[in-house]
Amino acid sequence: MSNAQPAVTFDEIRALVRDLPGPDLEAGTAALERQNQLTKPRGSLGRLEELAQWIATWQGSSTPQMRRPRISVFAGNHGIAARGVSAYPSEVTAQMVQNFINGGGAVNQLSEAADADLRVYELDLDRPTRDFTTGPAMTEEGCARAMAYGMMAVEQGLHVICLGEMGIANTTSAAALCTALFGGEPSDWVGPGTGVDARGLARKAETIAAGLEANPGALTDPLEALRCLGGYELAAIAGAVVAARLAQTPVVLDGYACTAAAAVLAKLDPRALDHCIVAHRSAEPGHARLLEKLGKQPLFDFGMRLGEGSGAALAIPILKAAVACHTGMATFAEAGVSGQAH
Amino acid sequence: MSNAQPAVTFDEIRALVRDLPGPDLEAGTAALERQNQLTKPRGSLGRLEELAQWIATWQGSSTPQMRRPRISVFAGNHGIAARGVSAYPSEVTAQMVQNFINGGGAVNQLSEAADADLRVYELDLDRPTRDFTTGPAMTEEGCARAMAYGMMAVEQGLHVICLGEMGIANTTSAAALCTALFGGEPSDWVGPGTGVDARGLARKAETIAAGLEANPGALTDPLEALRCLGGYELAAIAGAVVAARLAQTPVVLDGYACTAAAAVLAKLDPRALDHCIVAHRSAEPGHARLLEKLGKQPLFDFGMRLGEGSGAALAIPILKAAVACHTGMATFAEAGVSGQAH
Repeated sequence: MSNAQPAVTFDEIRALVRDLPGPDLEAGTAALERQNQLTKPRGSLGRLEELAQWIATWQGSSTPQMRRPRISVFAGNHGIAARGVSAYPSEVTAQMVQNFINGGGAVNQLSEAADADLRVYELDLDRPTRDFTTGPAMTEEGCARAMAYGMMAVEQGLHVICLGEMGIANTTSAAALCTALFGGEPSDWVGPGTGVDARGLARKAETIAAGLEANPGALTDPLEALRCLGGYELAAIAGAVVAARLAQTPVVLDGYACTAAAAVLAKLDPRALDHCIVAHRSAEPGHARLLEKLGKQPLFDFGMRLGEGSGAALAIPILKAAVACHTGMATFAEAGVSGQAH
Repeated sequence: MSNAQPAVTFDEIRALVRDLPGPDLEAGTAALERQNQLTKPRGSLGRLEELAQWIATWQGSSTPQMRRPRISVFAGNHGIAARGVSAYPSEVTAQMVQNFINGGGAVNQLSEAADADLRVYELDLDRPTRDFTTGPAMTEEGCARAMAYGMMAVEQGLHVICLGEMGIANTTSAAALCTALFGGEPSDWVGPGTGVDARGLARKAETIAAGLEANPGALTDPLEALRCLGGYELAAIAGAVVAARLAQTPVVLDGYACTAAAAVLAKLDPRALDHCIVAHRSAEPGHARLLEKLGKQPLFDFGMRLGEGSGAALAIPILKAAVACHTGMATFAEAGVSGQAH
């Protein structure tokens, strides 16, 4: 991310979110009609049928496609990492980005297994956000620039975009965001993250409480919450979610930090995440609570808590399967299979 | 299936199940040790780590493999279909087998998407089992021959075998089996299947009650329950589960009918299904109850109720993902990533 990044203002983002395009209900209905002619009892493929219809609805085409899946992982560093809220030191963010570049991360294997296109984006790793217990994590300009960066990561013509993050200390940032957006106590939203103990957990809650006190504006507006308590990678994810909607690209969200970033948009407009599914319910306890607030039913409940888009990547084969059934199955008429007897 | 099928007796099957090989705990431990060195917090890939270890344990190798997945679908017809327990007529079993041969079924698309090898086996579709309300569905010879047929479907060297079935009326057979094996009322175990209404549901429960009355031997022994209330495709599945254990091939079970067939073995020996996972929780309500009895946690809960191995096929990409992470990820040492700070 460079300073040459084209500027977007919070006002422009607000206007974009207010005017997001809606679903293509005609495409969705056409997809449903096809589903009902395929050689299976109606509805018997359950969620796979819903996914095919959902993809058709948001791609704006009665024939959903899944040949071009993208996984985009955004990495950023957090000033609060210095407060001992993570089991790992800050350097690990850049080391893990290097691991992704070398092909050694979990998301690399999952991307390859799903035949997806993986992109990793570093957001000023050597310039972490400000420790939010001392004031806003980002300037409005910095936050908006990160959002614009995330928007630019979404090309035209992708069939789905899976979003993920890497950022030591960002489950604390996510929990702070959730506390600001949805209320409750910091302790309701924190969890072990990469693996802190009870003392670390208490430190996370204290850090969030201090952050909320230092940033009263975070409670007044979702974008302000993002700016004050979030991080560059989280802002980029929020931007990518908006851009995907504009590009008719369905979105798969990953775990806690990723979903918290997207939740900022849901608080701006409750329809803003209609083109998104959540891949899995993370083991991080705040995620289940957040999914309930957003009304999202995840695909998997695998006890994963790695981030880096790993859960979202795992959804790609399921989406491919849903589209393959939708596209490739014979109809009752084509196959000469008898219908229901009674 | 022909009469030339090599005979296996119930006594031989009992002896096989009694002496099934156990897990290769050394291979499993070696796999776990590798997991703990990979560039992620320990346990953070959740079920994916468990799956990799489970595959290693049952393949008997510290380096699990998933290049040769097989999907085997067994089809059989049921005498009780004439009693109006299904929404579809009996002819649909053969028509759907033809649909699979032509590549038009859901399982064909799922198999192709997972790059798996699909085999479909017809078991005397023109000779349905006897209506079990009038006596045993199968002779011991017929049931044992179907089990032997299922055993022969398991080749050496497969990395996983996903089992499925096609058989109009077989959710009634499955519910009858479950009632005999686990107790309770027939109404506890029946469900809409392919889509019967309340009257059809009552007919299913009545048919099962009549079947239990006509087959008192079904309550005395699991193999007798299979013979009296099961079907050829269900017997073949039970046989395949046994043969897979002998061939060090992990098994993925599909929905209600498939799991009920395997449950026969669990009643013979509680360890008999340790090399099996269940892919999904079917929408058929008896399946959740059955999974609880077997202590199996399914991978998915997608509201599927199609059978034909569709849910099991969907597990293959998840298994491939688990193996890919296990095999391809860098260790902390290889990647030069810092470990936990505190």
